[in-house]
Amino acid sequence: MSEAARPVPSAPSDRPVPAAVDLIRAKRDGVPLSGHEIDWVIGAYLRGEVAEEQMSALLMAIYFRGLDPAELRAWTGTMIGSGERLDLSAVGLPTVDKHSTGGVGDKVSLILAPLVAACGAAVPQLSGRGLGHTGGTLDKLEAIPGWRADLSNEEMLAVLRRAGCVICASGAGLVPADRRLYALRDVTGTVESIPLIASSIMSKKIAEGTGALVLDVKVGSGAFMHREEDARLLALTMVALGTEYGVRTTALLTRMDVPLGRAVGNAVEVEEAVATLAGYGPADLVEVVLALARQMLRLAGLDGDPEAALAGGQALAHYRDMITAQGGNPDAPLAVARHIRTAPAPAEGWLQRLDARAVGNAAWRLGAGRARKEDPVSAAAGVLCLAKPGDWVHEEEPLLELRTDDESRFAAAMAALGDAFTVGPDRPELPGLVIDQVGG
Amino acid sequence: MSEAARPVPSAPSDRPVPAAVDLIRAKRDGVPLSGHEIDWVIGAYLRGEVAEEQMSALLMAIYFRGLDPAELRAWTGTMIGSGERLDLSAVGLPTVDKHSTGGVGDKVSLILAPLVAACGAAVPQLSGRGLGHTGGTLDKLEAIPGWRADLSNEEMLAVLRRAGCVICASGAGLVPADRRLYALRDVTGTVESIPLIASSIMSKKIAEGTGALVLDVKVGSGAFMHREEDARLLALTMVALGTEYGVRTTALLTRMDVPLGRAVGNAVEVEEAVATLAGYGPADLVEVVLALARQMLRLAGLDGDPEAALAGGQALAHYRDMITAQGGNPDAPLAVARHIRTAPAPAEGWLQRLDARAVGNAAWRLGAGRARKEDPVSAAAGVLCLAKPGDWVHEEEPLLELRTDDESRFAAAMAALGDAFTVGPDRPELPGLVIDQVGG
Repeated sequence: MSEAARPVPSAPSDRPVPAAVDLIRAKRDGVPLSGHEIDWVIGAYLRGEVAEEQMSALLMAIYFRGLDPAELRAWTGTMIGSGERLDLSAVGLPTVDKHSTGGVGDKVSLILAPLVAACGAAVPQLSGRGLGHTGGTLDKLEAIPGWRADLSNEEMLAVLRRAGCVICASGAGLVPADRRLYALRDVTGTVESIPLIASSIMSKKIAEGTGALVLDVKVGSGAFMHREEDARLLALTMVALGTEYGVRTTALLTRMDVPLGRAVGNAVEVEEAVATLAGYGPADLVEVVLALARQMLRLAGLDGDPEAALAGGQALAHYRDMITAQGGNPDAPLAVARHIRTAPAPAEGWLQRLDARAVGNAAWRLGAGRARKEDPVSAAAGVLCLAKPGDWVHEEEPLLELRTDDESRFAAAMAALGDAFTVGPDRPELPGLVIDQVGG
Repeated sequence: MSEAARPVPSAPSDRPVPAAVDLIRAKRDGVPLSGHEIDWVIGAYLRGEVAEEQMSALLMAIYFRGLDPAELRAWTGTMIGSGERLDLSAVGLPTVDKHSTGGVGDKVSLILAPLVAACGAAVPQLSGRGLGHTGGTLDKLEAIPGWRADLSNEEMLAVLRRAGCVICASGAGLVPADRRLYALRDVTGTVESIPLIASSIMSKKIAEGTGALVLDVKVGSGAFMHREEDARLLALTMVALGTEYGVRTTALLTRMDVPLGRAVGNAVEVEEAVATLAGYGPADLVEVVLALARQMLRLAGLDGDPEAALAGGQALAHYRDMITAQGGNPDAPLAVARHIRTAPAPAEGWLQRLDARAVGNAAWRLGAGRARKEDPVSAAAGVLCLAKPGDWVHEEEPLLELRTDDESRFAAAMAALGDAFTVGPDRPELPGLVIDQVGG
């Protein structure tokens, strides 16, 4: 008989083959994996005993079959156990963190962490970098001269004590399994799996040692999840995981069809965050920041008034402390792009739509984002939204300002913008940004 | 934002990332791949530009999503194009081959190839080795002292001219893509995919250059396919592929719930094949051999009488020529097992059931089969079925004879037999072995 038609042997106990293929086949056929099996397969993968091609096949089977709650708990537990788990009790304050699933113009963390710190909590935020059309918090803060994302655990604790908040890269010791698995998922088309996303996010937040966590799960064209039902399922999954592991967790579903605020890029988003901390923030950004801050304070058991802390300058003071404690100069001028072009309104009327993904892609093309992890980003590149949906615009009025240091990038950015905005005779309805709260 | 929640970037044309992940995601999401994409991804995989973990993720996505007819045609065409394609026109006879999806006691090729040759066709049969509970034709023939499976293309043609048939290993030049892909599928739980099985089998049969092909697609406990509907789908898929590539192809669905004939092993199956060629074959084996022979002759455009060729000794003469031409001595005594034990009937009554898979697993445990490709097999090991369903048996009468050179293997073999047979008061119905013909 030909090789291809051979029945795969059934597996008597003395069968001298790796168990990995049996686990892959079980998952493929919808048989749940035991906690022991999950622990074994992730451990053996990290030790090099399960091959990359076996783990990627298992991940694709999980993409199609999902993980049931017991499997997901075990998968996440093994991820956490692959590295160290921080103890933040020495900080002496209630700890609470926020995680966003990512959007366009999402500079919320830069404002929210010092704001919640100003209200009496400690905010230990381990963040990531951007990829594709969404920016990364660390990329944005690195636009500030001298600011450092990479801190030792001791440095992180010291910044947290001094400023009440810290935003930094997660160290190599935290959930090393996620680094390996994420890199593999990235090249094998297995990123978009709700249980794998949930375990990746939550393992890091649980290992980071925060006592409470608010998730900002974004929905819309500029978000990872385009459909509310997917976002809701992801939110429920993460809230359940956090709760099981002793982290008080809640999630807000928020809209991400339009860029948040007016700035999309790195330096331009830092500038907008500082303006917001100084009380001059755009309404949509302030709305999301305050909604998240209230949830964080509630979970931390604090009854501070975030609106007052923003208006009174206390949040800005904590921000300046944090930046300074991480080597940055909050007063240093930020990079300014060498080249600027604008995209004009095609007609007079109401700006009805400004597509977040198209604007994010344009900013990425201008140099604000990266296609691969190892690419550099430009601090100065980005897009300013001169009008937002609900504004009346005149024909030829500039709607977007495109900024870059490399003039050759304008063509690709304009192409990426495509059909980014709609101007028409009817004033658009502008729904509130917070769709719902899930859990906790 | 965290790595895990990053949206995977959309892919503008200048995106500097490998296309492999885009193809994986497309297939995963049910978008058909173009012929160009399939050609690229298999070629790039063979060149080492697409990683093993990417190909395994693609194969798992194909497991779940299937391949549509155009994709399957392209996939098979690329497999064929990865190596050489034999030209058998110099043989000067109509060529016709048979492929079995594998069963227990399936020594059909050993009888069928010389039988069809005796009726005037040339039978070029490239065969495989056994894995798990099913044996391989080459393993069986290697029980004959001196017989060689590995022939050059020139040697293969010479044997075919001299004996009218040849059974040998397919050379390294034939469909090298299948060697790589099968090895990967074997360790990643992606063997059991109908389009991947069909393309693996048919690419080799098409490249081998046969003008016609009869497929023996087995259904039942001892077969790869347990359900008739799966076997029918595989048969239809392979018949369509063969026809598209100019090979006249038909398939028989045949039952494989009971071992075929009485012998299961290597030397014991050669002995049963020779007995069948001499006119003393068991009825079930002869039934399948003749049904396949008639189909092969029909597709070859010949009107020979296979029953007469079997009874008259012409088939045996071609067998002896083929064995001799491949270095074997058809008169040499075959290996005899050092240890024999029997499994007795538990009660008096009709033998109602004798499970092919259990018997196959027992033979494997005795040393007749292998768990990994590189394992050796024992020529002498195997199982003889002393009774078959439909026989009346007495309590304690031996039903099976287990043979091995290694006494320590009996325990595992007995355990593998488990609940292999049923004896009861009702005479069983014995359906014909040919369920249906599919195509051509």
